[in-house]
Amino acid sequence: MTSSIPRICIAMGDPAGISQEVLAKLLVRADLMQRACVCVIGDRRVLADGEQIAGAKAEIAVLAPADVEQAAPGRPVFVDLQHLDPADIRRGEASAAGGSFAMRNFREALLLAKSGRADGVMFTPLNKLALKQAGNPHPDEIRWGGRGARLEGLCSEYNRLDNLWNARVTSHEPLRNVPAMLTRERIVSAIDATAAMLTGAGVARPRIAVAGLNPHAGEGGVFGREEIDVIAPAIEEARRRGHTVDGPFPGDTIWIRARRGDHDVVLSMYHDQGQIALKLLGFERGVTILGGLPVPIATPAHGTAYDIAGRGIADPSATITAFETLVALASMRLARVAA
Amino acid sequence: MTSSIPRICIAMGDPAGISQEVLAKLLVRADLMQRACVCVIGDRRVLADGEQIAGAKAEIAVLAPADVEQAAPGRPVFVDLQHLDPADIRRGEASAAGGSFAMRNFREALLLAKSGRADGVMFTPLNKLALKQAGNPHPDEIRWGGRGARLEGLCSEYNRLDNLWNARVTSHEPLRNVPAMLTRERIVSAIDATAAMLTGAGVARPRIAVAGLNPHAGEGGVFGREEIDVIAPAIEEARRRGHTVDGPFPGDTIWIRARRGDHDVVLSMYHDQGQIALKLLGFERGVTILGGLPVPIATPAHGTAYDIAGRGIADPSATITAFETLVALASMRLARVAA
Repeated sequence: MTSSIPRICIAMGDPAGISQEVLAKLLVRADLMQRACVCVIGDRRVLADGEQIAGAKAEIAVLAPADVEQAAPGRPVFVDLQHLDPADIRRGEASAAGGSFAMRNFREALLLAKSGRADGVMFTPLNKLALKQAGNPHPDEIRWGGRGARLEGLCSEYNRLDNLWNARVTSHEPLRNVPAMLTRERIVSAIDATAAMLTGAGVARPRIAVAGLNPHAGEGGVFGREEIDVIAPAIEEARRRGHTVDGPFPGDTIWIRARRGDHDVVLSMYHDQGQIALKLLGFERGVTILGGLPVPIATPAHGTAYDIAGRGIADPSATITAFETLVALASMRLARVAA
Repeated sequence: MTSSIPRICIAMGDPAGISQEVLAKLLVRADLMQRACVCVIGDRRVLADGEQIAGAKAEIAVLAPADVEQAAPGRPVFVDLQHLDPADIRRGEASAAGGSFAMRNFREALLLAKSGRADGVMFTPLNKLALKQAGNPHPDEIRWGGRGARLEGLCSEYNRLDNLWNARVTSHEPLRNVPAMLTRERIVSAIDATAAMLTGAGVARPRIAVAGLNPHAGEGGVFGREEIDVIAPAIEEARRRGHTVDGPFPGDTIWIRARRGDHDVVLSMYHDQGQIALKLLGFERGVTILGGLPVPIATPAHGTAYDIAGRGIADPSATITAFETLVALASMRLARVAA
C-alpha cells in the first residue's frame, strides 16, 4: 500500500534561526504526514527546541539510520545523529557548529536518496555564513548538494510562489557571460525541463512565458538582437515540440502578465531577472526546488530569519508548500516508474 | 510675485486613450493650479472631450501661442493649435493622426522651454505605435524629446513611485553592452546626477542605494567582479564627494530594503533591473522624469490605457504626482537661479 506513497527525507537546517520551529510546525500537520513516509535527520534535542518554540509537539519515533524504512504514512520517523546540543548554539548567531550540523544532515539525506531509500529530499533554511565557517567551499547550495552526493545530471533551480513558478536559463553566472550562453539549444532544453518540472508537480499543461534579454525585449532589434536571433527561434522550436509557450516578453512587463494569471511559469534568461520579481511578490512564501537530479530537492526560499529566532512567530507556509511540492513531484515520479 | 512660481507647459498626449481625461482631472484641481503658471498645448476640442469623459470642466482661457505669458497662478491658459477634431479619432485605436497631434504638442512645449518661456514640461501619455505611424523614428521618447528640441546635456531618465525613486547608469542599451559601459566615472557621475535630481525635487539629503550587476552582487567575486573592481570604488568616491550612498547591494534584495523605506532612491546598473521592480510595485502610480536637460520634463509612467478609454474611470494620481514633482523641480531651479 505504501509503495505509491513517496518517502520524503527532511534534513534539519541551521539551528540558530527558525529552521527547527518551522519544522515542528510542519510535523504536527497530521494531514500532511499522511501523504508521505517522512524521515527527519538531525538531533532530537534541536527538534525539541523547535517544538518548545512552536508550542507544538510532534509524534515522531526515534530510530537508528538503518531503520528508516519503518517510516509510514502518518508515522514519521527521526534519525537522531546526536551531534548537536542546542545549548551550544547561540540563537541568532551563525557558527561553525551550526553550519556543520546542517551540512551533515543534508549529506545524510542525499546519501539516503542516492541509495534509493528516499524519493525526495527537503531541507529547512541554511545560513551561508555558518556553512562557510564550517568549511563549505560552495557559495551555492545547489552545486554543493549536487556535488556532495555526487549526483549526476543537469541540476537546475526552480522557484514557486503560490501557483506561479520561475525557471531560468542561466543562474549563478556573471552577467557579462550571460548573452553568449544563450543558445537556441540551451533555451529549448530549459523549456523542456521546465515543462517536465511543472507537469511533475501536477500542472497538467503548463503555460510557459519566456522573457527576452534586452530592455523592451530588444524593441524590434533596436536595443539588442538576442530576441530575434536566438530566443524567438527557440520558442518556435519548443512549440513544434508541443509546449504551450509564449514570448519573448519584456523582462519587466512579463511579471505583470504572470501575476494576473496569464502564465504558470516565467522562464528568465538570468538570475536577477526572475529574483527581483519573486522577492517583491512574496519572498517569505516562496519555495526553491532543485530539478534534474535523481530525486527532487525542495526548501523554503526564505532564510534563517535570525531576527525572529526563538519567538514562535515564524510562518511555516513556505515549508508546507515545499513539502507539498516535493510530495507531488516524488509521487508523480513513482507513478511513472511503476507504469 | 509670480517670479518665483514656475511656468509649467503641458503637452496633450495621444488622443485615443485616457490622456485628455487625466488632464481634465488635473486641471480642475484648483489647489494645484495655484502652484504654477500653467499653459496647456493641444486642441481645445480634444480637452473638451476629456472634460466630458471626466465629468469635470476646467476654467482655462484660450490664447494665441504668443500670449502664453498671461498664464498666472490659479489661471491656466490653453494654446489651441486647432489641429485635431476628436471626431477624426477612434477611441482605443492608434493612428497617425493621433501620433502627429501628440508630437506637435510636445515639440511646441519644448520650443517654449527652449526660448525660456517654460520652466518645466509635462506630457500626458503617448502611444509608441501612433508615434511610429506618424513618422517618429525614435523608439525612445527621451531621445526623441532631447533631439526634437535640440536640447543639450546628458539626458537621463528617473522614475518616481510615491516617495521611492529609481535612477539608472545605463538605460536603453543591449544588455550585452552594459558591463563594459560600467566605468567608475560613469557611476560616480550618475550618483551626482541622482543626488541633484532628488535634492531638486525636495529630498533634503537623499539616501542612495546602489545596485550590483551580478547575481548576489557577485558573491564576493565568485559570480563576477564588477562590484569589486568598479562599483564599490565608485561608491567610495561618491562618499568622499559627500553623498549618502550605500551598496553595492544584490539587485533583487535591494528593492525589499527600498520598499521598507531604508533608501530614497535605487541606482540600477541597467534598465530592467529597476523596471522589473517598479512595474510590480505600482506601475499605475509611477512617474517618469527626464533630467539633465535645460528644463525638467515629467510624464505619468503608465500608457494610454486604450482598454478603458472614454469610460471616466482613469486614475489621475500619476498625472498629479508628475505635475507636483515638476513644480518642485522647477521652483527649486528658479530659486537657485535667483540666489
